Amino acid sequence: MKNSYGLQWNLHQALKCAILIGDFFLNHFYRITMAPKHGQLIYEGKAKRIFETDLEDVVLIEFKNDATAFNAVKHEEFEGKGRVNCEISSHLFELLGEAGIPTHYLSRVTDCWMRSKRVKIIPLEVVVRNIATGSLCRQTPIEQGTKLFPPLLDFYFKDDGLGDPLLSEARLEKLGLISEKNQLNVEEISLHVNDLLKSFFKKADLTLVDFKLEFGVDGNGQILLSDEISPDTCRIWDQRKSDDKDRILDKDRFRNDLGGLVDAYGEVLKRIQGVSSKQHNCS
Amino acid sequence: MKNSYGLQWNLHQALKCAILIGDFFLNHFYRITMAPKHGQLIYEGKAKRIFETDLEDVVLIEFKNDATAFNAVKHEEFEGKGRVNCEISSHLFELLGEAGIPTHYLSRVTDCWMRSKRVKIIPLEVVVRNIATGSLCRQTPIEQGTKLFPPLLDFYFKDDGLGDPLLSEARLEKLGLISEKNQLNVEEISLHVNDLLKSFFKKADLTLVDFKLEFGVDGNGQILLSDEISPDTCRIWDQRKSDDKDRILDKDRFRNDLGGLVDAYGEVLKRIQGVSSKQHNCS
Repeated sequence: MKNSYGLQWNLHQALKCAILIGDFFLNHFYRITMAPKHGQLIYEGKAKRIFETDLEDVVLIEFKNDATAFNAVKHEEFEGKGRVNCEISSHLFELLGEAGIPTHYLSRVTDCWMRSKRVKIIPLEVVVRNIATGSLCRQTPIEQGTKLFPPLLDFYFKDDGLGDPLLSEARLEKLGLISEKNQLNVEEISLHVNDLLKSFFKKADLTLVDFKLEFGVDGNGQILLSDEISPDTCRIWDQRKSDDKDRILDKDRFRNDLGGLVDAYGEVLKRIQGVSSKQHNCS
Repeated sequence: MKNSYGLQWNLHQALKCAILIGDFFLNHFYRITMAPKHGQLIYEGKAKRIFETDLEDVVLIEFKNDATAFNAVKHEEFEGKGRVNCEISSHLFELLGEAGIPTHYLSRVTDCWMRSKRVKIIPLEVVVRNIATGSLCRQTPIEQGTKLFPPLLDFYFKDDGLGDPLLSEARLEKLGLISEKNQLNVEEISLHVNDLLKSFFKKADLTLVDFKLEFGVDGNGQILLSDEISPDTCRIWDQRKSDDKDRILDKDRFRNDLGGLVDAYGEVLKRIQGVSSKQHNCS
């Protein structure tokens, strides 16, 4: 009996092991076969890889399944996250592009791959907030949930080693990372993006709480909205739910160990697609 | 032999104990007898106590011997610090007042006591930096020792519970702690104070690295430079010394466990008095 149980257990373990190995190779194979033809890796970040293409001013961006928080102290992989984020980002970049926002986006290629213009990223994170939460409430007496109108726009220095610190106006100027003219341009674009996304999300019964944008400069010196726009970089609340935790549809699910990350991201995608198809049917 | 040693030891301990108790009561007695007549305690901070007087718009400020750092995590008392800081502050407030800077200072009373106008402190710390060091170098890629010209002026929210966080322009505006007009006034005064102190300190072979100012509003709504100006609130380097540690004449001696705090503060006072007496002799 004991032997038979031991044998059963061994078989079970061996099977589990085989499934894991198979899964790994299948994923690896899938990633390679699904990947579009690309050149050298230019840059690997926490959530994306950027590759050269045949065209000097075009890159391929691969959205990874990795989720990181608290300056990468917390890290996990979520099967399917890369694909969903790539689809949401593509959708939102298209929407913004149609509204006249200059972006790096060219097209979605397949699965978790996007084609975009090659830019030199300005090492600044622009954070726009409509409702107070997160670090703002830890660093000021502004209470959780306070509506911020006009929205609050902050610059952070994009540097993992320094923990992406908040910049004052004086520090931003002293660092000399962006000209005064380009800074004003970036601020104007960011607030315009906020207006566009907020009203689009509202149609999908979603609240845009806050978001982070990054900008790049292309070969002609033009400022382009770059990086990604996804539940990794936006805080999004579900207006159809009232519970403080249930309504969260963004990376706070991972930060606060709430579970259901990919499902939440999928819900955002579904809602966005719903509004878009309605808009297309109307037009 | 053993008994005689034990007796000796007991006597030694008793003597030490008596000295400590005597010292405590003498200090306490001294503090009480030296204290000018004052009313109720209005406020007690980490380094000062503020008392009412017979006059509604006048307060008495007592400079304490306590030194704190890293948001009061580190704390120690230094005999004589309160007196030296009161003397330095009085001296510098007089100097600034003569140059037309509106300050809360009225007169030095005695020892560690200063009379000043009663103000409502604006919960902001204005930090002006001429040379990069401290938190600026931990929070930006600006290297230690970099000369900052024009000087860098930052606002911090004065709140121990939140760790006195840096404020961006947007956060400062959102908090609504100061009107736009008063903010411009405070910035202008702070930079003027920097010019005045920098050139005065230079005559004393001292480098003004950076400093923190606080402002208050008096009964007439006038903005007045308040709080203190001392080696507790300024970083001061001795131009007569080249060693990175030896030259420090401010609270960094306490923050970085360098010792000799009161001697260093005393040296600043001596140099300031030297320049002042020279100026008086010339005039």
